[in-house]
Amino acid sequence: MNDEASTSCRAALRDADRLVATYRVSGGHAAAVAEAICVEQTIEFPADLAPQWIRDEIVGVVELITSEEVTVSFNPAVAGGGLVQLLNVLWGNVSLFDGVRLVGIEVPPSISSAMRGPRFGIDGLRARFDATTRPLLMTALKPMGRSPAELAEMAATLAMAGFDIIKDDHGLADQPWAPRRERMAAVAAAVHTANARSGSAAIYSPSLNSPADRILADAREAVELGAGALLVLPGLCGFDAMRALADDDELAVPIISHPAFLGAHVIHPEHGIRHGVLFGTVARLAGADISIFPNYGGRFSFAPQQCADIGALCRSPLGQLPPIWPSPGGGMTIQRMPEIVQFYGCDVVLLVGGALHRGDLGHNARRLVDLVHHLDD
Amino acid sequence: MNDEASTSCRAALRDADRLVATYRVSGGHAAAVAEAICVEQTIEFPADLAPQWIRDEIVGVVELITSEEVTVSFNPAVAGGGLVQLLNVLWGNVSLFDGVRLVGIEVPPSISSAMRGPRFGIDGLRARFDATTRPLLMTALKPMGRSPAELAEMAATLAMAGFDIIKDDHGLADQPWAPRRERMAAVAAAVHTANARSGSAAIYSPSLNSPADRILADAREAVELGAGALLVLPGLCGFDAMRALADDDELAVPIISHPAFLGAHVIHPEHGIRHGVLFGTVARLAGADISIFPNYGGRFSFAPQQCADIGALCRSPLGQLPPIWPSPGGGMTIQRMPEIVQFYGCDVVLLVGGALHRGDLGHNARRLVDLVHHLDD
Repeated sequence: MNDEASTSCRAALRDADRLVATYRVSGGHAAAVAEAICVEQTIEFPADLAPQWIRDEIVGVVELITSEEVTVSFNPAVAGGGLVQLLNVLWGNVSLFDGVRLVGIEVPPSISSAMRGPRFGIDGLRARFDATTRPLLMTALKPMGRSPAELAEMAATLAMAGFDIIKDDHGLADQPWAPRRERMAAVAAAVHTANARSGSAAIYSPSLNSPADRILADAREAVELGAGALLVLPGLCGFDAMRALADDDELAVPIISHPAFLGAHVIHPEHGIRHGVLFGTVARLAGADISIFPNYGGRFSFAPQQCADIGALCRSPLGQLPPIWPSPGGGMTIQRMPEIVQFYGCDVVLLVGGALHRGDLGHNARRLVDLVHHLDD
Repeated sequence: MNDEASTSCRAALRDADRLVATYRVSGGHAAAVAEAICVEQTIEFPADLAPQWIRDEIVGVVELITSEEVTVSFNPAVAGGGLVQLLNVLWGNVSLFDGVRLVGIEVPPSISSAMRGPRFGIDGLRARFDATTRPLLMTALKPMGRSPAELAEMAATLAMAGFDIIKDDHGLADQPWAPRRERMAAVAAAVHTANARSGSAAIYSPSLNSPADRILADAREAVELGAGALLVLPGLCGFDAMRALADDDELAVPIISHPAFLGAHVIHPEHGIRHGVLFGTVARLAGADISIFPNYGGRFSFAPQQCADIGALCRSPLGQLPPIWPSPGGGMTIQRMPEIVQFYGCDVVLLVGGALHRGDLGHNARRLVDLVHHLDD
């Protein structure tokens, strides 16, 4: 870079706000790890060999070091190019450091203002479902193996019972028993018919576990066929593919984030990404309106404190981005719903799947809808 | 599903080979975890409520249980729809189980035969670089902050010195100091000119840390501008986006996989995915010709045994897919090259970055090229 360009870059950056990341560091090497992060996430180059202006403006800056945590700030221009590079700066090569966990992100206005973020969020979906204060109700079409007609019949029963969102089980892909297009067409039509007959307002959300080069086309097809939301698996398609679907004005439907393939990022207590940061902050940056995660006490292993953290970061301030819906799932039962609402509050999407099918599906579904619609009583 | 369709499905599946996954289970609950995986990765539904044919044909089957490992097989049709659903079956919701690690994958011919896999592999790149037996040499353009002209000059020096592959540092995105298109155009042109002047055959590989809805267009632009390979970050864009780039016949260039954002999948010894399975098997299924990972004894934390495992699974039999190049990097020095070749053998892409810049870049680069071209002497 010549001197003139270098000077103008410096001038442009001097007043810029900073991208801030906090990492918990195990093993007592916090200061060394902090310095390594500053270099590793930017120039990946011996700092003493870099020109002074690059050391001053591009290398990260250690803002704070305690015995257990380090806070580093970056020139937001380092994250130039969108969410992929933002996540790359925050956790790209650091993900390969043992004993480091990303526990906090502060996204500066210069970055967040360029992001659309969740299109609906809590208020948008409350309006969509005319649900002023109550939790929303979501369930999943299953089991894999059912034909499109069988899944459509199931969806109609659930819509007429008053469920808000009827999603595909996340593993329903393009299997021979229910090819994607046939399934989406049959279920979307059944939900529309059920709504028309019963006055319900359910929406169908197919699972978009599609090939990367077909995901947008599949999403468009889903919406054309009548789908009212999209279930996206960012652990598999990448968070930015979810962001691209959320940003697409032709789709303009709610985005539901599913946690498949994401577990390793959070499970190691001394590595990875804090539960709330991944399923709250990052999901919001990537445009999710609803973030599904395994609730405590279900089939999986998240602790109550981790779940509360997700709930909190789905709804805490994040630039101009609206708060979104936490959706604890994974083996939930009807009996647990009051406890779950007490734990998360009413801004929650209750997700009950298999448990509805023990006994009569319609009866169980209506019972749960009735319970949720009368929580205040 | 009606009886006829069900019967024909059964007939179609009876002779099919199986998708096999082996998991290491910590905590002594191997049998329970095995049963849970069979259900969780398929029907996600109370098994006793599923029709008999679904239990027989869709739920996974426990093939083997020892005190520490379980092997489960799946009907390959469960993975219908491509690599996304294949990875979803192998590690989607299981990723949320604590104490479970995916340590082995056997992909049946019915799945692998439908995959293109790596386009070049070891033999293809040996032919491309006219390198009959020697390791290949790769380096990275850095540090971030350099202008397109400065990076182009650096690339020319490295090409004339005889490096095979000159890649962008993986963090070079669309920053103001070197916007993507300007950088790609300048560097590609410089490498072509250097090749023409010196008789070298270097290729330039830009970093495709692009937005999901622009990655294919950026890849096409890169190749049009003269890029000879593509650096892809599957931890950020998803493995299937890498697969889509590898499969694209208009691009038809080598694919280099970078480990950014993938660390959490391997670091926890009792969770995640075995190093060789992720950086070897999965990278190959996703079309990588070269798989970069942090070498032992560098800036990161992989152990020699984990690195050897990656080297082995880059090259062991995997359907009709060719073996690929392991590329250990992350703070490598010229002095360590003979040791690295001894460790991995000659089918290795040596990756040296910042260390080349201490002293004269051209001199250091030529010295390393000379060393590698005379390893047999």
